[in-house]
Amino acid sequence: MKMKRVKKEEVKTESATIGAFKKEFDVCAIGNAMVDVLAYADASLLKKHGLTKGSTTLIDEQKAAALYKEMGAATECSGGSAGNTISGIASLGAKTAYIGKVRNDKLGEIFKHDMRAQGIYYNTLPAVMGKSTAQCLVFVTSDGDSKVKSKNVERTMATFLGACQALTRYDIDSEIIRNSKVCYAEGYLWDIEDAREAVRKAVYLAHENNRVFAFTLSDPFCVTRHREEFMELLTSGSIDILFANEHEITAMFEETNLQKILMRLSKLCRVAACVTRSSKGSVIVDHEGNVYDIEAERVAEVYDVTGAGDLYAAGVLYGYVQGYDWYTCGRLGSLAASEVIKYLGGRPLTKLSTLLEKI
Amino acid sequence: MKMKRVKKEEVKTESATIGAFKKEFDVCAIGNAMVDVLAYADASLLKKHGLTKGSTTLIDEQKAAALYKEMGAATECSGGSAGNTISGIASLGAKTAYIGKVRNDKLGEIFKHDMRAQGIYYNTLPAVMGKSTAQCLVFVTSDGDSKVKSKNVERTMATFLGACQALTRYDIDSEIIRNSKVCYAEGYLWDIEDAREAVRKAVYLAHENNRVFAFTLSDPFCVTRHREEFMELLTSGSIDILFANEHEITAMFEETNLQKILMRLSKLCRVAACVTRSSKGSVIVDHEGNVYDIEAERVAEVYDVTGAGDLYAAGVLYGYVQGYDWYTCGRLGSLAASEVIKYLGGRPLTKLSTLLEKI
Repeated sequence: MKMKRVKKEEVKTESATIGAFKKEFDVCAIGNAMVDVLAYADASLLKKHGLTKGSTTLIDEQKAAALYKEMGAATECSGGSAGNTISGIASLGAKTAYIGKVRNDKLGEIFKHDMRAQGIYYNTLPAVMGKSTAQCLVFVTSDGDSKVKSKNVERTMATFLGACQALTRYDIDSEIIRNSKVCYAEGYLWDIEDAREAVRKAVYLAHENNRVFAFTLSDPFCVTRHREEFMELLTSGSIDILFANEHEITAMFEETNLQKILMRLSKLCRVAACVTRSSKGSVIVDHEGNVYDIEAERVAEVYDVTGAGDLYAAGVLYGYVQGYDWYTCGRLGSLAASEVIKYLGGRPLTKLSTLLEKI
Repeated sequence: MKMKRVKKEEVKTESATIGAFKKEFDVCAIGNAMVDVLAYADASLLKKHGLTKGSTTLIDEQKAAALYKEMGAATECSGGSAGNTISGIASLGAKTAYIGKVRNDKLGEIFKHDMRAQGIYYNTLPAVMGKSTAQCLVFVTSDGDSKVKSKNVERTMATFLGACQALTRYDIDSEIIRNSKVCYAEGYLWDIEDAREAVRKAVYLAHENNRVFAFTLSDPFCVTRHREEFMELLTSGSIDILFANEHEITAMFEETNLQKILMRLSKLCRVAACVTRSSKGSVIVDHEGNVYDIEAERVAEVYDVTGAGDLYAAGVLYGYVQGYDWYTCGRLGSLAASEVIKYLGGRPLTKLSTLLEKI
C-alpha cells in the first residue's frame, strides 16, 4: 500500500473542515474528477482524429496535447459526470459530498474550488506526484446550422484520465458513505482497475448501513467495455437506482424492446431504474414494476448538450432524497437537464433551486 | 536591460511560426493578457470586500486568493480587454496580432492556446520567473432577478496583474506594428510603468509608418488614475481613433455635455472617436465633425455584460479596416456587443462572421 505524504498543517486544516459539515449528507458521489475544456468544432476535426461523434474516447497525455493544439478557443470549467451531478444536487439545495482524485496542480485547484464553492464536502487528498489533473476535451458540433443553435447539437469527448487513475479504495471515506442517504457512482470509474475496488467498497459500506447505492452506465462504449461486470453488479443487487440512456441500456441487455428491459430492471433494482431518451424524455420504473413516462422540457435554443444526462440524474436524486414521487423526480430531472443545455458546459452557474418553483 | 533566458528549441519554434502569418495584419492589439474567472455573485460579497459595482479594482496576489476562496463555482476563459477585442476582430474574419505578457504556467498556456486557436498571431515571450499569469475575477451580479436574466446585469472585476507587469518596450515587435493597418491599445496598460513606455513606442512606430493608432480609456477609475497622461496622449495627436464609454469620457473632459465633448474629440482625433452609451447605443464623431448616432442591438436575455465594450471596439475596428462607413462600423460594433452579452465571458466562442449577414 502506497501512502501519500502530506504536510502536517494540511491534514489539520482538512480535518478541521469536516466538523462544519456535520458529516451528514443527502447524496455523496464518486467519480472521475476532471476539468472540461469546451469548444465548438467542425465535424471534420473529429473525423481526422478518429473520434466517434457523440461518445467518449479515452486518450493519453500526448494525444490530449495534440488534440488541444487543434482545438478552437476554449472555455474551462469543472466537470466529470458524477461531479456535474453532485454540483446539480448541491445547486438544488441538498447536502452533498464528493470523492474523486485530482493532482495538486492548477486545474486540481480549480476543481476543488468549484466543488467547495457550492458547499459540496470535498476532501479527497490530491495526488502529489504522477499525472496531472484529468481533462476532458469537449468538442461541441452542430449539424448544418453554423450558429450552433439547432436541435442537432452534439458533444464528443476525449478524456485524459490523468490523476483519476490514482483513486483507490483508501480514498473512500467510510464516514461519508455511512452518513449519506444515497451513494452515487459513475460507470466511467470502471476504466480504472483500482477505482472499481473503490466503488465495490462503497457499495458494501452503503448496504451495510442500509443506504441506497445509485449507479450510471455513463456511455454506450463504457457499457461495451465493461458489460459483464456491470451485469454482475446489477444481478447481484448492488445497484438500487440505475441511470442509463436508451443506447446504454440496449447495449447492456442486448435487447431493443424497452418494455422488456424495463420489466427486467424492475426486478433487478431494489428502488428504481431511470432511462433517458434525449428529446423524447425519460422513463422511470420502480421496484413494483410501475412505469412513469416523463416528457422532456422544451428549450428554445440548445447550445450544448454537455451534462444533460448528469443533470437529469441530479434532479431525480434530489427529488428522491426529498421524498417526492417518481413522476415528480423525473420532472425535476427533465427541468435540471433543460437548464444545463442552455449554456456551454456541464454545470449551470446559476442556482437550480429556482427550478423548484416549476414543479 | 533584463533579458529572459529561453531554451534554444523554444525560440526556434517561435520564429518558425512567424513565416506562416506573412507578418501582415489588419489590426494588432496590445493589452494586459489575462484569464477571466467568472462567477455569478451576490452584491453583498462585493460590499464585504470593498469592490465598487460595475468597475475594476486592482488587487494583489493575496487578495486575489482570498476573494477566489469566497467566489462561487466559476468558469475560466481567456480575457483581457484588448484580448477580447482582438479575438472579436479575428472571429469577424480579419488578420490579427496580439502583444501581451503571460507567465509560462497553466493559465499562460491556456491564454496562448485560445489566441492561436483563432488564428491570432501571438508570440510575446512568456515570463519565465516572477508572478503568475494575470487573473481577472469577474463577479456577475443582477439586481432583483435571481435568475440573472434581467436587464440590470452588471459585472465587477478584481484584477491581479501578475505577469502583465513584466511587459516592456522590448516586447513591442516593430515588425508587427509596421505591418498592421491599425494598432490598438488599452488604457489599463497605464497601470504599469513599463507598459506605458511600450505603448509610446507602439504609437511612434505606427505613426512613423502612416498607420492608425487606436486607444480605449478602459474604465472610469482608470481615467481618474491617469487623466493627465491620457489627455496628453489625446492633445498630442497620438490617438487617431478613441474608444470610451459615457462615464469615461465625461471623467476625462470633466464635462457632462456630450455634444461639446464630441466637438472637441473631432478636433483631437485624426480619424474618429466612438462613445458607447450601454443600452442607449453609441455615438461616433469623425474628424470632420460628422456625428453618427447608432442604436443598440436588442437582446432578449442579457446574461453577462463582460466584454460588451471590448466587442463594440472589435466590430468598429473590423468595419474600419474593411472600409465601411462609420454608421456601418457602429452597427457592427452594436451587433458584436449584443452577441457577447448572451454568454458568460468576454469572448463569444461562436464565429462572429455570421453577424456580417445582418448589415
